[in-house]
Parts: sequence; structure tokens; C-alpha cells
Amino acid sequence: MEDRTELDRLFMQEALKEAEKAYALDEVPVGAVIVCDGEVYARGHNLRETMGDPTAHAEIIAIRNAARKRKSWRLHGMTIYVTLEPCPMCAGAMVNSRLDRVVFGAADPKGGAVVSLMNLVADDRLNHRLQVGGGVLAGESQELLRRFFRQKRKEQPEK
Amino acid sequence: MEDRTELDRLFMQEALKEAEKAYALDEVPVGAVIVCDGEVYARGHNLRETMGDPTAHAEIIAIRNAARKRKSWRLHGMTIYVTLEPCPMCAGAMVNSRLDRVVFGAADPKGGAVVSLMNLVADDRLNHRLQVGGGVLAGESQELLRRFFRQKRKEQPEK
Repeated sequence: MEDRTELDRLFMQEALKEAEKAYALDEVPVGAVIVCDGEVYARGHNLRETMGDPTAHAEIIAIRNAARKRKSWRLHGMTIYVTLEPCPMCAGAMVNSRLDRVVFGAADPKGGAVVSLMNLVADDRLNHRLQVGGGVLAGESQELLRRFFRQKRKEQPEK
Repeated sequence: MEDRTELDRLFMQEALKEAEKAYALDEVPVGAVIVCDGEVYARGHNLRETMGDPTAHAEIIAIRNAARKRKSWRLHGMTIYVTLEPCPMCAGAMVNSRLDRVVFGAADPKGGAVVSLMNLVADDRLNHRLQVGGGVLAGESQELLRRFFRQKRKEQPEK
């Protein structure tokens, strides 16, 4: 039997690498990877400011990359790993793309749509549901976000 | 005082023109326009099959077009018109893009995230809320969808 915990940590490390890429671009550091058949199939990191696109969250970019590669909008059989609990838009996109499973790192008490404010990825009323894993390398993800916002506050002292 | 009802019907007609474009491409006929300063600023129609992209709903395409044009992900001051009540992904994208208002045509009892299953665009826990209008030219929108699915059933007789 595969040790899902160990694999989940391994792929979350890859998502964290994506989050670091966002950080380097001065973007809120969130990263995602999509895994198919035990391998990283697509990647994405937050590019909202860089692209000036409100939909350019890490998860949406990874989903679009995976769909382009598979030449289909149906991503069944795949798992998405994301360093921060998805917002409603991204949770909805996971349902729409028929992903099998979502694993997130840190919870987002202010905007999370998987465990914090609501659960959109396992809502019986919608036409697809995902399995959920959470809290994988949450400390690492949180620390990266904290570091980012601490630096932002330093750059913008009291008004 | 402006007659909002009349204006809403006018812009929903434009969204219906977008839905017709989707129909012509054999896509589920949903269309959207984004209005700024009393003029159509961006347009979009469902391209999920054509682009093989699970995020290519009419609303997401219109939002991305508007953000590209404004060179900013913040779409405050704008209203989005969409022929069908938005799904959770699209409702979440409207919150993320800071749109002022959403007006939809037909309600979607199976997947709508504004009045039918939940209301994501006016959730006090999220960091932005939209004004909501609904039911504008709902009959026209519904008739177009009905015509589309009727034809689909004809093309695929009993298995």
C-alpha cells in the first residue's frame, strides 16, 4: 500500500517551490501542482499582479496548464496540491474540472472554501465532489506567507 | 434618475448576443458582458469545449478581457451581465475582481451560487460584496438553453 502521507509531503514540496517563485515576483506566495499517475503533470503559481488578472491564482493556472496538456477540460484521475486553502473561485474551478482530490497546506480562516468558511469541493448539490486532504506542510506554507507580509509591512511603514 | 431596469435589459441583450455566439460553436449558450461608465467594456461567451479549458466560462473570459483592457485586476465601478446565474467558480471570480454589481438572466437551480444554492457574491465573511440583480430577460436566456439541449438530445438518441 502506498504511503499517501509521504507522497503528499513530497508533492506539497513541489507546490512550495511554486510558491517561492511567486514570492520572487513579489506576488502573494501561493503555489500549486497537479499530479497524474504519480508524477507532476502541471504547475502554477500566483501571478495576479504580474498578469493583472484577478483569476490568475496558482490553482487556476495549474488547472489551465493541465487541461491544455491533456487537451481536455476533464481532469479526472488527478490530484491538485496547493500551499494555501483555496478560495471560492479556485474551489469551484476544481469541481468544474472534475479533479479527484485536493490537498492543501495552510488553512485560510479568512477566505478558505474547503474547511474554513464553507466546503465547496464536497457539496452534494453540485455535480462533482473531490476527496480532501489538508494541513500538509502547513507550517512551511504559513511561514512563507508570514515572511512575505512582514516584508510588505516593512516596505510600507505607517501612513 | 436613470431607469436601471431599461438599462439592465439593454445590456442583457448584449450578453444574449454573446450566448448566441457560444451556441453557434456548439457550446452551452451562456454569454456575459461587463459594463463600465454606461458602455460595454468587455465581452465573453462560454468556450469550454472549444478551448478545452474548464475555466473558460463566459464570465471568466469577460473578466479577463476587462482586466487586460484596464491593465488591473481590480474591476471596481463595473457591472457584469450574464445570461445564466453564475456557478461557484464564476461567483468567486466576481468577488476576487471587485466588481460592483452582477445582473443575471435565468436562475440555475442545479448550480447557481448567487440565489439558488448559496450566495457567494454577498457573503459578509469574504473581503468584497457585489450588488445583485436577477431575472432580467430570464425567459430569453432559458429558451436559448432549452433549444440547445433539445437539439443535443436529438443528435444523441437513446443509447
